[in-house]
Amino acid sequence: MKSGWIIENHRDMQDLGVSESIFNVANGYVGVRGNFEEGYEGDEPTVRGTYINAFYDITPMLYGESAYGFPDTQQKLVNVMDVQDVTIHIGEEKFSLFTGTVVSGRRYLDMREGKYVRLVHWISPQGKEVEISFTRMASLTTLELFTIDIEVTRINCQDEVTITSGVNGDVSNYTNAKDPRVASGHAKLLDMKNIEVFDETSLQIVLETNTSKLQVAATTVHQTTPAVNGELIKGEKSVMVRYAFPAGKDIVQFTKFNVFTDTRRHEDPAAHGRELMALVLTQGIQAAYMAQEVYLQHFWEIANIEIQGDEVLEQGLRYNVYQLLQSVGKDKYSNIAAKGLSGEGYEGHYFWDTEIYILPFFILCQPELAKQLLRYRYTILGEAKKRALELGHKKGAAYAWRTITGEECSGYFPAGTAQYHINGDIAYTYIQYYLATGDKDFIAEFGAEVVFETARTWMELGHYHEGLFKIDDVTGPDEYTAIVNNNYYTNVLAKYNLEWAASWYKQLAETHPGAWEALCSRIGLTTDEITAFEEAAAKMYLPFDEKLNIHAQDDSFLAKKVWDFENTSEEKHPLLLHYHPLHIYRHQVLKQADTVLAHFLLEDGISTDVLRNSYDYYEKLTTHDSSLSCAIYSIMASKLGYSDKAYDYFIETARMDLDNTHGNTKDGLHMANMGGTWMSIVYGFSGVRIKDDHLALNPSLPKQWKGYTFTMRYRQATITVEVNHLKTQLIVDAQELIHIKVMEKSFKIPMGKTIITV
Amino acid sequence: MKSGWIIENHRDMQDLGVSESIFNVANGYVGVRGNFEEGYEGDEPTVRGTYINAFYDITPMLYGESAYGFPDTQQKLVNVMDVQDVTIHIGEEKFSLFTGTVVSGRRYLDMREGKYVRLVHWISPQGKEVEISFTRMASLTTLELFTIDIEVTRINCQDEVTITSGVNGDVSNYTNAKDPRVASGHAKLLDMKNIEVFDETSLQIVLETNTSKLQVAATTVHQTTPAVNGELIKGEKSVMVRYAFPAGKDIVQFTKFNVFTDTRRHEDPAAHGRELMALVLTQGIQAAYMAQEVYLQHFWEIANIEIQGDEVLEQGLRYNVYQLLQSVGKDKYSNIAAKGLSGEGYEGHYFWDTEIYILPFFILCQPELAKQLLRYRYTILGEAKKRALELGHKKGAAYAWRTITGEECSGYFPAGTAQYHINGDIAYTYIQYYLATGDKDFIAEFGAEVVFETARTWMELGHYHEGLFKIDDVTGPDEYTAIVNNNYYTNVLAKYNLEWAASWYKQLAETHPGAWEALCSRIGLTTDEITAFEEAAAKMYLPFDEKLNIHAQDDSFLAKKVWDFENTSEEKHPLLLHYHPLHIYRHQVLKQADTVLAHFLLEDGISTDVLRNSYDYYEKLTTHDSSLSCAIYSIMASKLGYSDKAYDYFIETARMDLDNTHGNTKDGLHMANMGGTWMSIVYGFSGVRIKDDHLALNPSLPKQWKGYTFTMRYRQATITVEVNHLKTQLIVDAQELIHIKVMEKSFKIPMGKTIITV
Repeated sequence: MKSGWIIENHRDMQDLGVSESIFNVANGYVGVRGNFEEGYEGDEPTVRGTYINAFYDITPMLYGESAYGFPDTQQKLVNVMDVQDVTIHIGEEKFSLFTGTVVSGRRYLDMREGKYVRLVHWISPQGKEVEISFTRMASLTTLELFTIDIEVTRINCQDEVTITSGVNGDVSNYTNAKDPRVASGHAKLLDMKNIEVFDETSLQIVLETNTSKLQVAATTVHQTTPAVNGELIKGEKSVMVRYAFPAGKDIVQFTKFNVFTDTRRHEDPAAHGRELMALVLTQGIQAAYMAQEVYLQHFWEIANIEIQGDEVLEQGLRYNVYQLLQSVGKDKYSNIAAKGLSGEGYEGHYFWDTEIYILPFFILCQPELAKQLLRYRYTILGEAKKRALELGHKKGAAYAWRTITGEECSGYFPAGTAQYHINGDIAYTYIQYYLATGDKDFIAEFGAEVVFETARTWMELGHYHEGLFKIDDVTGPDEYTAIVNNNYYTNVLAKYNLEWAASWYKQLAETHPGAWEALCSRIGLTTDEITAFEEAAAKMYLPFDEKLNIHAQDDSFLAKKVWDFENTSEEKHPLLLHYHPLHIYRHQVLKQADTVLAHFLLEDGISTDVLRNSYDYYEKLTTHDSSLSCAIYSIMASKLGYSDKAYDYFIETARMDLDNTHGNTKDGLHMANMGGTWMSIVYGFSGVRIKDDHLALNPSLPKQWKGYTFTMRYRQATITVEVNHLKTQLIVDAQELIHIKVMEKSFKIPMGKTIITV
Repeated sequence: MKSGWIIENHRDMQDLGVSESIFNVANGYVGVRGNFEEGYEGDEPTVRGTYINAFYDITPMLYGESAYGFPDTQQKLVNVMDVQDVTIHIGEEKFSLFTGTVVSGRRYLDMREGKYVRLVHWISPQGKEVEISFTRMASLTTLELFTIDIEVTRINCQDEVTITSGVNGDVSNYTNAKDPRVASGHAKLLDMKNIEVFDETSLQIVLETNTSKLQVAATTVHQTTPAVNGELIKGEKSVMVRYAFPAGKDIVQFTKFNVFTDTRRHEDPAAHGRELMALVLTQGIQAAYMAQEVYLQHFWEIANIEIQGDEVLEQGLRYNVYQLLQSVGKDKYSNIAAKGLSGEGYEGHYFWDTEIYILPFFILCQPELAKQLLRYRYTILGEAKKRALELGHKKGAAYAWRTITGEECSGYFPAGTAQYHINGDIAYTYIQYYLATGDKDFIAEFGAEVVFETARTWMELGHYHEGLFKIDDVTGPDEYTAIVNNNYYTNVLAKYNLEWAASWYKQLAETHPGAWEALCSRIGLTTDEITAFEEAAAKMYLPFDEKLNIHAQDDSFLAKKVWDFENTSEEKHPLLLHYHPLHIYRHQVLKQADTVLAHFLLEDGISTDVLRNSYDYYEKLTTHDSSLSCAIYSIMASKLGYSDKAYDYFIETARMDLDNTHGNTKDGLHMANMGGTWMSIVYGFSGVRIKDDHLALNPSLPKQWKGYTFTMRYRQATITVEVNHLKTQLIVDAQELIHIKVMEKSFKIPMGKTIITV
C-alpha cells in the first residue's frame, strides 16, 4: 500500500509557510525547509531555511528589569547558507509556479525511500510545455549530505534549457517585528569566512557565526546529463553556476550534491567537507538513494504502525515517527529541538519534550538512538552542575529548561528555570531506558552520575517541614500555574529519582565496583548521602485532597478560583496570548496535563479511583493550549476505559501539523506531539508500561478500527503486537528470558520466537 | 544654632558622585545635581544631571521572553540641558580644584535660606590667590527658576578674570554598560529643536524628546558686576558667553538666571520662558533669595524637629525633610520620584513609597502639598482603570507599580505588577489624609472615586473559598517573597479599602448628594456592589498561625525553609544581587517589613502579644536590604517598648544618604527613607496615630536624648509636641474642637490655644 507511505500536498500555493515545515528534509544533522528551489514571487510569507542541529550563535537577552542569575545571552539555531537555489529557464522564460499554466503540480514525501519529490507539469506563458521533477534527500547514512536532483522533460518544445544553481552565504534568521523576542539586530548571525571555487562545477563557502565563532562549510558539486560545461560567477557572498543544455528533446538531468560540515563536529570543516564530497561522488547519487532505502527498511521494520481501517491516520502516524527520525541528533552534541530541524521556532532549543514525549519512541523502537539522546544529557552535565551552584545550591545538577549546549537559555524563569521537574524527567527517562534495555553498563558509564546529581538537587531544593519533605517555589509541567509549593508532579518524580539513586548506588557497588568507587570518589558521594536520599524519598510530601479524593496539583491549586470557561470565547485561546500571567496563575486552569501526566509516568500504588477522579477533575480545567497535552489525556483515557475520549484526543494529536490545527506549523513541526501520537497508541490503546521487572500491556481497540499492529524492542527482544476485535497477539523474538504481562496475565518468555495470544 | 541648619562637606574630592546627590538643588519642579560648574578632570565617576519632574521620554523594554500585558515601553526621566557650565580663568589659568593649591574648599546647603554654596580659597599653579564662591538656588516660589551666583575675589593678584558660561543642549542620560537595564542606545533622549540668542547675555535652547515628543526650554540670562559686555558663541547644540573682567582689585560678580519650561505644563514653553524670565529680572536675585527665605521660614515653622542632646541627628533630620520639600511635585503632573530630583535611579518613577513613607510627613506638616500628591493619583486614575482591564479585570483600577504618567513601567512583574497592594496603599493614604484634615470636599471631588475603584479591584482579584474572601497570586511589600496567596498585608489593606469605600458611599450620599449621584451614575456604582464590598471585608481571610500566635505573612511563608543567615557572609548582601529570585523566594527571609508594616498601618483590634510575637518573629528574618525597612522596625520597636532597637533602627535611617550607608547614594537620595526618618520620630518615639475620630500620641524619649520637639497639623490645628524626661507637653492652636489622646488619656480641645501637659 504505497500511498500510505507518501505524504502528498496538492495545495502547494496555499499556506506555503506550513508546507515548508511539513516538507522539510532532514536527517538529524542537517535540515532544509521545503522552499521552492526557484523561490516565490511577491509577498508570500516564507521562512527559507537550512539548519545544522546544535549549530548556534549567541544573542543577547535583555530584560525590563534583570536579576541575579538571569541568563544574559541565549543560544540560537542559525540559518546557514542556502543551497536550495536553482532556477530553470526554458528558452528565455523562467520557470515559476506563479506564471504560465500549472497543468499539474504536487509534491510528496516518500517515507520508504526517504526522498522528497516535487513534480510539475507546466506550460510557460509562451506555450512551452515541460515536466520538471525535483528530488531532495538528506542522507541518513552520510549525515552531512543533502542532494537536489532535477529532471526537465520538454514535451512540446525543443528550446535550450538553462539551469542556474546558487549557493548563497548572505543569509539571515527569520525575524518578526511584531514579536518582541526577536530584536531587529539579531537576524544576521553569519559572516563570510571563505568562498572558494574549485572548478566550474564545484565550490565551497565557509561562514562564521558572529559571537559563538563557530564555522560551517558547504561544499557543493554539480553533475549534469547530458554533460555540459558550467559557467561560474563568484560573488562576494554567493556563487552561481549556469548550465545551458542545448536545444533538443533530451531529458535534462541535474544533480546538486551539498556536504555540510561544521567546527562543532569537524576539526577542519573545509578540508573534511572536500574529503567527504570526494567519497560521495565516488559512489554517486543512485548508491546514496539505495543506502537511504536500506536504512529506512530497517527503521520501518520496528517503527511502522499499521492501522486496519484508517489509512489516513496510519499515514499520519508514519509521518510523525518519520519526522522523529529526521529530527533526532545522532551525535553527542545534539538532541531533538522542539521543532526538530523544520523551523526556527523555540530557537532550536532542547526541552524536557525529548525525555517525556520523544524518548519513549526511541527507547522502545530505536534504543541505540535513545542511548545517544541520553548521552547528550551526560555531555551537558557539567553545565547543569554549574547552573545548580548559580541557583544557590551547594551541589547537584540543575539542567537548563531550554538550551543547546547546556547553558540556560530561558528568559522567563517562572515558566523556565522554575521548572525543576526537568531534572526528574531526565532521571526518570534514564531509568526507563535501563528498565527497557537492561543495559547495566550504561548506568555505570553515564546513568548513575546523572541520577545521583539530580537526586542531590532535590535534597538542596527541598526541606523538612512537620516531618515531611517539601519542595517550594517550583513550576510543574502546567505553565498556567507557576511558582508553587509541592507540585505533585515534581515531588513524585523527585521521590522516584531519589529512590533510584539509592538503588543504583547499591547495585553499582556490586555489578561495577571499580566504576562505582571511582565515581563516588570523584563526585564525593557517601553512604550517608544515600541514606538521606532514602529518607527524603520516604518522607516525600505528596499533596492529596481527601474530599475530592485526588492528588492536588500543588499546595494551593485547589483553593484558587476556577477559570470562567463559559465566558471565555474561542478567540481568547491560547490564554497565554490574551491574559497576563498573573491572571492565569490566579485561577484553576491548566495549559497541559500535570497531575494526570504524573499519574501516567508513575501509576504504581495509586488506586484507579484516584486516577479517575484526578482525570475527571483536571480534564475539565485543561485548555490543551500546549501541544504536549492531548496525547497524555488520550493515554490516560485509554487507561481508564474512556474509549471515546482516548480516540478523540488521539485524533487531535495525530494530524496536528499536517492539518496545522495549532496554526503555527509555519514555525516548525511539533516534535513532542509527534512522539505523543506514537505514545497514544503504544502506551495508550495498547497500554504498554515499562515496569521494574516486566513489560506490561493492556490492549484495547478503538471501535473505529478493525485492528492495529506495531513493533517494539524490549531487552533486545523484538515484539510485534497485533490487536483486533478477536484477540491480541504478541510475536516475540527474545534474546534472553523476559517477562511480559498482558492484561495482568503473566508470561515468562524464553529465548527464541514465541507467539502469545490473549 | 545656625550650624544645625547647614549640611557641610569638606571632602569634596572624595565620593564626588555621592556629593552630587547630596548637594542636589531642587524645588519639586527642577533639580540640578551638585556637579562642579567647571567640571572635573580625568575619570572621576560623575552623573552630571538636571531633571524636570515628570518630564520623560519613552524607551523600549525588552524581555528574554515576553508575555501578554508586559509593558513594551518604559517612561524615563530625562537629563535635560546642562546650565551648570561655568569656567573661570584668572589671567590665562583656568580655575580647577584638580590643579594648583586648594587652601580651603567646602560646600554647604543652607536649609534656612534655601541655598547651596561652594567656597573655594585657591592658589593657581602660577601662584595667583583667589577666593571664589558659587551660590545656587532652585526657587521654591518661582519653580521654573534655577540660579547660579558667582563671586571672585582676587587676593594677591590683579589679573583679568574671565568667566565663560555655557548652556549645553547635547546631553545624555547616564548609562552603565554593566547594567543590562540600560541599553546602549537609550542614553540620548533629546534632540535640538531650537537654539536662539537674544542678545549677548541672553539665550534660549529648546529640546525635544525622541519618542514622547515633549519639549523643554531653558531661557538663560547673565548679569555681571562690574557690567561687562558678553561675547557670545552660538554652536550647533550649545551656546557659550564669555565675560572678560578687566584687571584690578574689584570683586567680580556674575549671576546666571535659568528658567525651565516644558510642554507638559506650558502651552508654549519658549514664550512662557521668556515672559517668566522678564518677571524674574524685574525683581532681581536678591528679591528671589528673600522670597526663598520667607517660604522656608513658613515651612520650618511646622517641619522643624529639634532634638535636645544630638545636634548631628537633628541636622540629619532637617536634611531629610528639606529633601522631601525639594523633591515633592507641586502640580498635578508630578509626584515624588524614588530618588527625588537628585539622580536617575529608578528612572524618575513614582512608587508606593510616596503614599506609605512620604505622605505621612506631608499630611501632618504640609497638608496642601499632601493634597497635591493625592491629586496626582486622581489624575492617573484613567490609566489605572485601563490597566485593570488589561490585567483581566472587568472593572476597577490597578495602579502601576512604577510610573510617571500612570502607565505601568515595571519590567519584572513578580516584584512589580504583582504588588497589587499599591492600590490599598493609595486608598489607605486617601483615608489618612481625610482623617487628618477632615476635608470632606476632597472626598467628594477626588477621594471617593479612587477608593471606590480600588475597592472594585479587590472584588475582581479575590474570590470566596470555604466562606472566606481570599486573594491569590500577589506580592506583598517584602520583595523577597513573591506571588503568594493571601499576603496578610495585602488582605488587611484590601479589607480596610472595602470598608471605607462602603463608608464613604453612605457618607457622601448625605454630605454631597449631588456629587454622589453624579459619581455613582458615571462609574455605574450601585448599592448592591457596596453590599458586596461590605461582605468581602467582613469575610476577608487574614492568615494566622495559632502556634506562633502571629499573623502569617501569607499562606505558605511559615512552611518554608528559614534562610541560613549564619552562613551568609556580609558580602552576600543585599541578597538580590547575589542569589537567583527563586532561591530567595524559597526561603523565610524578608527584604523589608511586611506583616510588621501592616501592623503599623492598621493596629486596631490586634493584641499587643500578637504585635510583639510578630515583631520578634519577622525581625529575625529581615535583612533590611530595602531602604524602606528600618524606619518601620524603629516605629514598631517604639510601639512595643523596645527602646534600644527603636533608637538603633532610627539611627540607621537618619543618615543613610549623608553617610552613604547603602553604597548607592550616587544614583540619588533614598526619598522614602527620608520620610521614614521623620516617621520614626513622630509615629515612632512620639507614637502618633491618626485614628478615626482622634489623634493619638504615646510619647517616649530615647535615653540618648534630653528631649525633642516637633510640630504637626491636625484638622487645621497646629500642635507642637515637646517631650523631655519630665513631661510631654502639647501646645495646641485649634480651629475647631478636636480630640487628642495622649497615652490613652483623652483631651477634647476647644478652638484656640491650649496647653496639655502629661
